[in-house]
Amino acid sequence: MTSVHIAELSWTAYDERLKRDNPVIILPVGSLEQHGPHSPLATDTIIPQEIGIAVAETIDGLIAPPIAYGYKSMPRTGGGNHFPGTTSLDGDTLVRLTRDIICEFARHGARRLLILDSHYENEMFLIEGIDLALKDLKSWGIDDLRIMKVRYFEFVSEATLAKVFPDGFPGWPLEHAGVMTTSVLLHRRPDLVHMDKVPNQKPVIYPPYDLFPVDPKKGTQTGILATAKGATPEKGEVLFKEYVAGISAATREAFGLN
Amino acid sequence: MTSVHIAELSWTAYDERLKRDNPVIILPVGSLEQHGPHSPLATDTIIPQEIGIAVAETIDGLIAPPIAYGYKSMPRTGGGNHFPGTTSLDGDTLVRLTRDIICEFARHGARRLLILDSHYENEMFLIEGIDLALKDLKSWGIDDLRIMKVRYFEFVSEATLAKVFPDGFPGWPLEHAGVMTTSVLLHRRPDLVHMDKVPNQKPVIYPPYDLFPVDPKKGTQTGILATAKGATPEKGEVLFKEYVAGISAATREAFGLN
Amino acid sequence: MTSVHIAELSWTAYDERLKRDNPVIILPVGSLEQHGPHSPLATDTIIPQEIGIAVAETIDGLIAPPIAYGYKSMPRTGGGNHFPGTTSLDGDTLVRLTRDIICEFARHGARRLLILDSHYENEMFLIEGIDLALKDLKSWGIDDLRIMKVRYFEFVSEATLAKVFPDGFPGWPLEHAGVMTTSVLLHRRPDLVHMDKVPNQKPVIYPPYDLFPVDPKKGTQTGILATAKGATPEKGEVLFKEYVAGISAATREAFGLN
Amino acid sequence: MTSVHIAELSWTAYDERLKRDNPVIILPVGSLEQHGPHSPLATDTIIPQEIGIAVAETIDGLIAPPIAYGYKSMPRTGGGNHFPGTTSLDGDTLVRLTRDIICEFARHGARRLLILDSHYENEMFLIEGIDLALKDLKSWGIDDLRIMKVRYFEFVSEATLAKVFPDGFPGWPLEHAGVMTTSVLLHRRPDLVHMDKVPNQKPVIYPPYDLFPVDPKKGTQTGILATAKGATPEKGEVLFKEYVAGISAATREAFGLN
Amino acid sequence: MTSVHIAELSWTAYDERLKRDNPVIILPVGSLEQHGPHSPLATDTIIPQEIGIAVAETIDGLIAPPIAYGYKSMPRTGGGNHFPGTTSLDGDTLVRLTRDIICEFARHGARRLLILDSHYENEMFLIEGIDLALKDLKSWGIDDLRIMKVRYFEFVSEATLAKVFPDGFPGWPLEHAGVMTTSVLLHRRPDLVHMDKVPNQKPVIYPPYDLFPVDPKKGTQTGILATAKGATPEKGEVLFKEYVAGISAATREAFGLN
Amino acid sequence: MTSVHIAELSWTAYDERLKRDNPVIILPVGSLEQHGPHSPLATDTIIPQEIGIAVAETIDGLIAPPIAYGYKSMPRTGGGNHFPGTTSLDGDTLVRLTRDIICEFARHGARRLLILDSHYENEMFLIEGIDLALKDLKSWGIDDLRIMKVRYFEFVSEATLAKVFPDGFPGWPLEHAGVMTTSVLLHRRPDLVHMDKVPNQKPVIYPPYDLFPVDPKKGTQTGILATAKGATPEKGEVLFKEYVAGISAATREAFGLN
Repeated sequence: MTSVHIAELSWTAYDERLKRDNPVIILPVGSLEQHGPHSPLATDTIIPQEIGIAVAETIDGLIAPPIAYGYKSMPRTGGGNHFPGTTSLDGDTLVRLTRDIICEFARHGARRLLILDSHYENEMFLIEGIDLALKDLKSWGIDDLRIMKVRYFEFVSEATLAKVFPDGFPGWPLEHAGVMTTSVLLHRRPDLVHMDKVPNQKPVIYPPYDLFPVDPKKGTQTGILATAKGATPEKGEVLFKEYVAGISAATREAFGLN
Repeated sequence: MTSVHIAELSWTAYDERLKRDNPVIILPVGSLEQHGPHSPLATDTIIPQEIGIAVAETIDGLIAPPIAYGYKSMPRTGGGNHFPGTTSLDGDTLVRLTRDIICEFARHGARRLLILDSHYENEMFLIEGIDLALKDLKSWGIDDLRIMKVRYFEFVSEATLAKVFPDGFPGWPLEHAGVMTTSVLLHRRPDLVHMDKVPNQKPVIYPPYDLFPVDPKKGTQTGILATAKGATPEKGEVLFKEYVAGISAATREAFGLN
Repeated sequence: MTSVHIAELSWTAYDERLKRDNPVIILPVGSLEQHGPHSPLATDTIIPQEIGIAVAETIDGLIAPPIAYGYKSMPRTGGGNHFPGTTSLDGDTLVRLTRDIICEFARHGARRLLILDSHYENEMFLIEGIDLALKDLKSWGIDDLRIMKVRYFEFVSEATLAKVFPDGFPGWPLEHAGVMTTSVLLHRRPDLVHMDKVPNQKPVIYPPYDLFPVDPKKGTQTGILATAKGATPEKGEVLFKEYVAGISAATREAFGLN
Repeated sequence: MTSVHIAELSWTAYDERLKRDNPVIILPVGSLEQHGPHSPLATDTIIPQEIGIAVAETIDGLIAPPIAYGYKSMPRTGGGNHFPGTTSLDGDTLVRLTRDIICEFARHGARRLLILDSHYENEMFLIEGIDLALKDLKSWGIDDLRIMKVRYFEFVSEATLAKVFPDGFPGWPLEHAGVMTTSVLLHRRPDLVHMDKVPNQKPVIYPPYDLFPVDPKKGTQTGILATAKGATPEKGEVLFKEYVAGISAATREAFGLN
Repeated sequence: MTSVHIAELSWTAYDERLKRDNPVIILPVGSLEQHGPHSPLATDTIIPQEIGIAVAETIDGLIAPPIAYGYKSMPRTGGGNHFPGTTSLDGDTLVRLTRDIICEFARHGARRLLILDSHYENEMFLIEGIDLALKDLKSWGIDDLRIMKVRYFEFVSEATLAKVFPDGFPGWPLEHAGVMTTSVLLHRRPDLVHMDKVPNQKPVIYPPYDLFPVDPKKGTQTGILATAKGATPEKGEVLFKEYVAGISAATREAFGLN
Repeated sequence: MTSVHIAELSWTAYDERLKRDNPVIILPVGSLEQHGPHSPLATDTIIPQEIGIAVAETIDGLIAPPIAYGYKSMPRTGGGNHFPGTTSLDGDTLVRLTRDIICEFARHGARRLLILDSHYENEMFLIEGIDLALKDLKSWGIDDLRIMKVRYFEFVSEATLAKVFPDGFPGWPLEHAGVMTTSVLLHRRPDLVHMDKVPNQKPVIYPPYDLFPVDPKKGTQTGILATAKGATPEKGEVLFKEYVAGISAATREAFGLN
């Protein structure tokens, strides 16, 4: 059986797959961004890759090399871009990167593309890259590419949220390097998590506005917004399976796969 | 012992390393590009990553996530950009990507950067990205970042070339997915090479000029420019060790490391 | 008493104000975007202008001409960009527009800037424009400009939400041209609202992902996501006063005004 | 009767108008720029808006929200961009803004566009925006959009010039915040003009070349190039009526309206 | 005696000149644009080069290779960009070209730059290039570069106009490939002028607005706006000498040369 | 007989040529770059112009004004961009310049374009300009333009190399302002060469990597990489004739000329 990783296929093997059944091409998009003292900088790239591989195996798709650098981290959703290790792109760079990759897959003959995003701040630049790519492709006579953009965490159910947070879900903004993310990492890459370094801190509350330039002395000092103390591999497994099942089903429906 | 992969470090671990000894940050740059029917599309990303990890271990450096998509493949050095699987960026996209990543590492406090390139067509866009980054950094008051740009294959010795090509070195342009590249892959990632699919063809001779748009009916049809029949893991090991030793020594010298 | 509108001041009057007390400059940002058959296309420009004027009067600030065209409308938050009348900018255009205007106010000597946004899809491009402006200004030796970015609707209280939606708040995504927006318009610009044209429809439920290109046959056909039937000028007054009071107080605090 | 302001129409009302009779869409373009101590900073936006509304009423057209920030003011035509209050865009920003707005109106189905400019320095960037928009539209299959670009002051007759300047017309370059502009403002927005602050100065004579960077100590210190002492609302009315009549007639002829 | 052409100097000779007396660097800017059936396409490049050489000899300056491609030709000033042979740049291309060249001369140590333009449509893009260059240079710590921008034809005197047009000056817009331009060519490059091909046509009168896309069937069909029948080498000599004397004197004054 | 220089033709003469026989349009591309103390800064522009004129005469083609400013000089191939006199463009500027010029010649009706490059560092930016132009043209419905890109020095034969370097060819990197370049200049423009200033130095050996920012104290101090002492006009004539013959023949073959 051949790899689901486009990176590992020869061009001839890839070409055969494209021509045989027009598989969904999955493009994971993440970031290199601080995720607290306990999680790796590539957290947001590792998770969509792990999910992407599992989805590819489920729907017989292919997965492309990830976009491993994302847009600038914002205080209320990622702690702020001033942390060492957080390595971000200008908006226009991410837009062009997205546009170029889409246009190339379309040139190969791919017609179904799943962009699987993990990093909150990426979203609008991915959308702009998609829009520009579709306009370019249209100008070159290609108008049948279909693109699905997913933020994996939107596929969690209320039931699972209740299980993961028995004391109540604190809300998405606080989930940066929090219980959910850390649980999924504990399930898939426990070697990269240091639970002993999870800060024992109260949620960081931000005012309902942003100030620039960001004052590094304000806001989270550890990088996390709420503690990940409750994270477990078991929770991670539940979440991971739900993400994979939900995204696989949605992809099948969206692209009319049987 | 901690990982050499920045992606696997937490921001606090990374920050400690930066402050402790100003390590060399290694940025591998490759491509997703056809490398014949026998080699993986990510050949040019895998090799600088493998070399980069070994160099990082040798000089106590750190390695960043690679730039996994490169500039458009040219007929005389990569077969041409029309092949399925070859997934390339516009020049300006690669320039901005390089510029942004450099500026961010400089913001973290890194002052020694090694850009380790594997894909011939990338070079000038990396240079432009470096130049623009240095100008931006200068305008923000940072003028002590030092960047070393290496194309790994320039570190092969005449002696090794003679060993690898007992019948004479056919020249660099023909080396795309040829004996050297394939040997290194056989040494480091034999699971990704299919020696039974190496085309048994004569070198493809191009005229000393380029025609655009590229006519897909002309030039290599298999994607290779010269056969990789003579590739062996033993040759790959000799080459790999020479690359790692040479680049490590040069890096130490260039950055004044002991 | 002089106008709060920079547009209406002469350069000498404006210059005197800047030099006298370094007033907060308020830049409203909106869109020209469908807001259902009952609300004007400029809804998202009118509201931050109305709020901005009231805030300017409260904190003795000045208000600049609005950015009246915004980023592309997305299906789940604005119905989609395919509607006639929705007139949107490329992301990079909005980024540059924001950057240029900020740099110019800084050149005048202004040091306190309040960006008052009303259109969900603008946010990340405003943030990028702010970041690029601060970098440019830094390179020219200006590093004491402070910018506050506000989305007015984040200043509503739970108590008010409960009053406005006696049957429960349906959530932000459905609020496009919904009860809150329409109520504020009924309070400030009743001449522009046609309550008899409010569609009597159920909330439009979107799946938790996006498909591109957008299929105009799917999703809202009227432009609204949830009905605005419950909108009243009284609710609008409560909301408007809360926005103005909250933003004024926050601005005073953020900029250290007495 | 419905509004001529697109901003005030709902998308359904706008769409009906477009489909019914393909009305001319009028886009006013101005600036936020010093106009002496007696005129408002938005002079160049107010005037094309006033004219645009009257033209729209005359030819049954529609008027879009204005471009309220323009290109950098030049010494010989606007005093120079160094004045506080003058708030200008980079050339490329204005080009993209113009291009995007044109493309969107074309997507709605509009096929007749009147760009009504008031600020001398804008012209070439509007032309470039128009050219790029037409090329983009052509690439997407739209080639029947027609665009008319007008600088309103070109529609004054020799007879009127003679009336407005009984002692002889001093020439266009000196007309920045001069008798003509001020007269039109006195006719349409007398509340914004302070005739008591009109400088009593001789015309500022510039050499026939430009020096950069502009030396703020040279050239006009008040912002005006020639005095507006002779401005009256009566002159303004004559001018305004001539502009509206001339532009309306030209538009009818250019677009083949009856 | 050494050449006034930077192109012909070695870097050492050029460097010596820069260090010795900070000479004015003259950058001619033109176009490749139709100039009727009787004049060469490079008319607007040849003339500022000829003037530039003479000015360089007069003030002991140096002349750089010209910008030989300019901005798009407009109907009312150049006949329109649709003519074969007219080879124009996008606005942004000309801006960047201007910016880069200025920054490089500043890096060499040059501090006095004369931009000598001949093509009406170039002006605003040159100004933008100058502004961006000065901002970049400022960010790198260079703030003492002085730039003078000249359109050579602004240096003609009323007296000369009266001589050249004994029946009255028809106005600048009609001067494209007209009597003045052709006379200068007859004086400096008679080999490139074909007086027998000068169209015997009446002035082409354009309405006071522009329509896009340009209709090639309207406006000038020959490329000229008014006949060049009256052109003579004698008139050309008078004009040329006046341009050289006037620009030399102005340059001396502007840069404080003795 | 008419000129081969497009610059010297009227638009009508140019148009006739295009329509008559679809001639090859030759675009020389060079640089303004130090070439040692003995050669002119425009060496890389002069040579492709001289070759281009001769090729145009041989194949009945036309030659366009050259691109006279090129990409930044690199240490190992041009000494480095820090030399006074070296006047270079950003990569994106050269890309856009190339793209615009190509698109305009295609608009005229030209379908055969020869880009004749002389400056090593230009190559990838020319390729990118070509690729973007072909994509733009395709979007506007033009898909039959054919472009040939030549670096003239690739047309030298082994036999000639042996004649020119009786002691052995030192390799291309050292040829910057070396024996070959200088010989061609001595043949075509002896007035611009100062053989008495040729440095009597040993070849400058660079390590197999690049360091940024470039340290001006390292590498060549004279600007040359190897001495041009052996240059003669006789060698230059042999080389020049071979270049012209080889490129003419290749052009004929590539474009199917008889």
